[in-house]
Amino acid sequence: MTRHKVLIVMGSKSDIEVMKPARDRLEGFGIETELRIASAHRTPEVVRELAQTASDRGIGVIIAGAGFAAHLAGVIASHTMLPVIGVPIPSSSLLGIDALLSTVQMPPGIPVAAVGIGQPGAKNAAILAAQILALSDQGLSERLAAFRAEMVEEVKKADREISKT
Amino acid sequence: MTRHKVLIVMGSKSDIEVMKPARDRLEGFGIETELRIASAHRTPEVVRELAQTASDRGIGVIIAGAGFAAHLAGVIASHTMLPVIGVPIPSSSLLGIDALLSTVQMPPGIPVAAVGIGQPGAKNAAILAAQILALSDQGLSERLAAFRAEMVEEVKKADREISKT
Amino acid sequence: MTRHKVLIVMGSKSDIEVMKPARDRLEGFGIETELRIASAHRTPEVVRELAQTASDRGIGVIIAGAGFAAHLAGVIASHTMLPVIGVPIPSSSLLGIDALLSTVQMPPGIPVAAVGIGQPGAKNAAILAAQILALSDQGLSERLAAFRAEMVEEVKKADREISKT
Amino acid sequence: MTRHKVLIVMGSKSDIEVMKPARDRLEGFGIETELRIASAHRTPEVVRELAQTASDRGIGVIIAGAGFAAHLAGVIASHTMLPVIGVPIPSSSLLGIDALLSTVQMPPGIPVAAVGIGQPGAKNAAILAAQILALSDQGLSERLAAFRAEMVEEVKKADREISKT
Amino acid sequence: MTRHKVLIVMGSKSDIEVMKPARDRLEGFGIETELRIASAHRTPEVVRELAQTASDRGIGVIIAGAGFAAHLAGVIASHTMLPVIGVPIPSSSLLGIDALLSTVQMPPGIPVAAVGIGQPGAKNAAILAAQILALSDQGLSERLAAFRAEMVEEVKKADREISKT
Amino acid sequence: MTRHKVLIVMGSKSDIEVMKPARDRLEGFGIETELRIASAHRTPEVVRELAQTASDRGIGVIIAGAGFAAHLAGVIASHTMLPVIGVPIPSSSLLGIDALLSTVQMPPGIPVAAVGIGQPGAKNAAILAAQILALSDQGLSERLAAFRAEMVEEVKKADREISKT
Amino acid sequence: MTRHKVLIVMGSKSDIEVMKPARDRLEGFGIETELRIASAHRTPEVVRELAQTASDRGIGVIIAGAGFAAHLAGVIASHTMLPVIGVPIPSSSLLGIDALLSTVQMPPGIPVAAVGIGQPGAKNAAILAAQILALSDQGLSERLAAFRAEMVEEVKKADREISKT
Amino acid sequence: MTRHKVLIVMGSKSDIEVMKPARDRLEGFGIETELRIASAHRTPEVVRELAQTASDRGIGVIIAGAGFAAHLAGVIASHTMLPVIGVPIPSSSLLGIDALLSTVQMPPGIPVAAVGIGQPGAKNAAILAAQILALSDQGLSERLAAFRAEMVEEVKKADREISKT
Repeated sequence: MTRHKVLIVMGSKSDIEVMKPARDRLEGFGIETELRIASAHRTPEVVRELAQTASDRGIGVIIAGAGFAAHLAGVIASHTMLPVIGVPIPSSSLLGIDALLSTVQMPPGIPVAAVGIGQPGAKNAAILAAQILALSDQGLSERLAAFRAEMVEEVKKADREISKT
Repeated sequence: MTRHKVLIVMGSKSDIEVMKPARDRLEGFGIETELRIASAHRTPEVVRELAQTASDRGIGVIIAGAGFAAHLAGVIASHTMLPVIGVPIPSSSLLGIDALLSTVQMPPGIPVAAVGIGQPGAKNAAILAAQILALSDQGLSERLAAFRAEMVEEVKKADREISKT
Repeated sequence: MTRHKVLIVMGSKSDIEVMKPARDRLEGFGIETELRIASAHRTPEVVRELAQTASDRGIGVIIAGAGFAAHLAGVIASHTMLPVIGVPIPSSSLLGIDALLSTVQMPPGIPVAAVGIGQPGAKNAAILAAQILALSDQGLSERLAAFRAEMVEEVKKADREISKT
Repeated sequence: MTRHKVLIVMGSKSDIEVMKPARDRLEGFGIETELRIASAHRTPEVVRELAQTASDRGIGVIIAGAGFAAHLAGVIASHTMLPVIGVPIPSSSLLGIDALLSTVQMPPGIPVAAVGIGQPGAKNAAILAAQILALSDQGLSERLAAFRAEMVEEVKKADREISKT
Repeated sequence: MTRHKVLIVMGSKSDIEVMKPARDRLEGFGIETELRIASAHRTPEVVRELAQTASDRGIGVIIAGAGFAAHLAGVIASHTMLPVIGVPIPSSSLLGIDALLSTVQMPPGIPVAAVGIGQPGAKNAAILAAQILALSDQGLSERLAAFRAEMVEEVKKADREISKT
Repeated sequence: MTRHKVLIVMGSKSDIEVMKPARDRLEGFGIETELRIASAHRTPEVVRELAQTASDRGIGVIIAGAGFAAHLAGVIASHTMLPVIGVPIPSSSLLGIDALLSTVQMPPGIPVAAVGIGQPGAKNAAILAAQILALSDQGLSERLAAFRAEMVEEVKKADREISKT
Repeated sequence: MTRHKVLIVMGSKSDIEVMKPARDRLEGFGIETELRIASAHRTPEVVRELAQTASDRGIGVIIAGAGFAAHLAGVIASHTMLPVIGVPIPSSSLLGIDALLSTVQMPPGIPVAAVGIGQPGAKNAAILAAQILALSDQGLSERLAAFRAEMVEEVKKADREISKT
Repeated sequence: MTRHKVLIVMGSKSDIEVMKPARDRLEGFGIETELRIASAHRTPEVVRELAQTASDRGIGVIIAGAGFAAHLAGVIASHTMLPVIGVPIPSSSLLGIDALLSTVQMPPGIPVAAVGIGQPGAKNAAILAAQILALSDQGLSERLAAFRAEMVEEVKKADREISKT
């Protein structure tokens, strides 16, 4: 069976502004997504079930975004063998450094793939998930290449404009 | 039923040096302890069961020590209503600041009582657990008072000695 | 005698916005509170008296919130054997990291139970205090369970809504 | 064509102690590896060529370990569409916090999958790479499951031993 | 041939507010500038070409401003022997500390001359570039001296005004 | 009455290595010292009494050295109007950054004069105390001038030696 | 001769908002002040002269406030034997942590008395200066005592009000 | 007149281990050096004179290495218009982060070119100085190119060796 979907989980309703662009980006690549709210601390059973059933539901990559002592990605990773991407969200007063360390500093044995803090990280999480899925999906691989070409063109256009000033 | 035991969980065999003094301190107060190794990431089911059955096994307070992105205390707290004390352990290169933030910065709803980093924190975790249990245990309360009196005397003795130099 | 009240002390009038939710949460659990302003540095005698008389006034847990070099929780802990919960408040330019370290890094012997920085920490302080008091109060234990069930339901509801988008 | 190899690049000869366990872990999973030294700053052309030709050489995932202002993973990611895992190495006086931020805080558009600092991170990088490749390799998937089962058993064994003390 | 121009490169269109004052300052010194947008990650080939051809195009100093894991200055430095000045830009939630460490902590062999974070750093980058070029340009040296004299006078004027209050 | 003595208080017997040089420096200036061990948390009554009676005992400046969440200087300052100098001691795993912030970030109203972390700070505390007392002690003022002249000569001598290499 | 004045120096015109309260506080104590703008980097000769002539102009304490890499207090201290109080000002993006470390971490031999970051620190600098001058000024000593009594009363009043809610 | 010498100043005799490689590197390039010990705080007059006379003594670039609140580079920069390179030295307990911020975060107007912390930074300071001087010295430019070619070859050799393992 193919696992080509991406599950996006966030720890709280308030994380939607940060995580929404990840879904938009994935849909832009033609990747099917599931968007869920589940808290490692308040609804641990939901998190566990989401993680344990993900592979069988056709999910290939899980993106987990959380703030504060962000345990969500790590807890998901403890219940699945799918690659888990963690997005640290700057919800507390500490600018996201707490969420970053809680996400990236996993002890040996259970990895999380951490991306940068906040919305830029969420966007990159989507691209990273697509890069992973593209390993066995030639069409997606081409859409990724087209996306990068667009980015390049965008930067070059800005460069041409500023060079004239 | 009375819950007068303390469960001490650590995330890895290598945490024993840091956590052992917590047990010694509790036994010094005459408090019964359970010492366990369970990892939030490698044996999440064991952690869950330990947490969910703790209250029924006569445990009143749980002390959880972990390093790196220390999720152990938070994950335990998500499965019990007992007070959970978290000891951040400086296992990674970051001196324990990762474990501290992963332990203390819990999102609203599921608290962890964090103490300081490493062995000084582990000792304080034991005293804090005893203070909590002493609320309904007059004998323990007196042993705690005696312990503090000893500490006071120890500092005063050191003071007398240094004053003479 | 029963000690079932919670004393909430804050270091300055301006801390009220952060600490008020702790009181509201405790009252929601039916726990009686005392709300006080006392400064470890400006009114140390008041702090000392509050701490020394707390147990006799029927207080079981003390919550202390302070900013800057937050000494309040530690100073209270030095004058009582009751469990003291410290809430670091982000009053200075340093986002609360100064208050966090001043609260949590207690030297061995006199513990403080630190929670997270700011209002999320204050809310958790209230829940933690309730968890401690619930060890010998079955009714409170049930109210805590109901509160957690509500939180679970709230997250599940948000999850159902977002799943449809 | 299948891309089932893992390219491990490190920025300096002195990183070998940290990165070697990543290769050992991958070989333990039966995954073919290429081990290379290439510096984003001293041999940028080598880095570029390694990245640009990786996919055609049958490589599916790239692991890049570097210290100081660790640009290696990001520079590789700018020259390939394969998933790139970055291992921050604590070579400077700053304990690896410089390498971590240089690796994980990628601007939007070009993701790096960061793991923890140093050897624990290197081990996790290997497991993460295996998890990614396992998405289209049932045999590897089973070896990963067996590896995790062993880890679980190891923790449980340590737990049994400590419980007796 | 004389190399008396300054190339100013920034990683993204949004960096213009921070970097524009560097150009203005250089033009105030009568130094010719090239203003370019090129991203170490999105348009690495443009960055490489800009760096490799800079010396032949009459450029003596390169100023590179970037945010997040700011690799731009280091990547440029890997492709040229001209002095490269790096301006860390506070684009992420981390106030520029990520960009600072990514810029300044270069491994031995390929130096970057880092200045302070954000616009104050950008202004200083321009003055530093002028100081370098002034080593072989007497006229510029005098304009720099005049500029500093003006600064001195400005501070003295503010001092005279405040002394009267 | 003249207050020309310096009271040196440290929070723990183990701080003696750091604080001893402060006393030696003061005695080198011919200033009488009192050396005491008193803990803000374990012997708060001793601290209070030391602070409250200091002025009447002929003490002009108080130096307080402590580690962890270093409350000692602040607590002393709350009980006296004498100038209090705080020396942050790196006793915990956090290199003294916890002690520094706990010492220097005093809320408005009760100042502490913080010096640098550890033994260099302790030496400077002694010199600062001497500078304060020298305001009304011409002889001490001259001994301070002689001390500085010696320092100058020492640096100049090292300079002469290195210049020859 | 008596040195009873306080010299307040700030590094830039923009520091006036932070430093003004220091002067107001000193004037409230009846202490004569000199308010100056002088930059360790832009007008080093002015700084040197201010420092070297301060004692002869009847100044007893110098307060120096500066932001960024705040060298002002340290440079002043290198040119005088008067006690120098440093106020770190949060002018850069780093919230004042750069100014704090640049002020407090003086190498052994030349102390600076650092207070907290920003306006709270500036207020405390004024009180600290007054405490130093009060060592030989009984009237000032009494005004300080009255000031503290007022603070105490203010906190007690706020406490009475909140106790009623 | 040509200014082709490099002045290397360090704040203390103990900095020699860190700074010596800078001199060795420069001599390897055939650049004449002056090695001096001068302290911004203990011998400010020496620092001032070194800086003010440097240009006339044929010096083109100044390298300044210092630890703690490292003011040396900034103070030198305030007394000369030559480019000043600052090397932060990790002398204090804070791993050099204090020296880094004190060196790099210069306020606008007086730039310092900061390199990385410690010996790797010192080596890079030498190369950066050579790059600056090479702008008007074709022979040096060629020696720099040869040096870089050697570095490239060294990395490639290590790569060849590791590829065989």
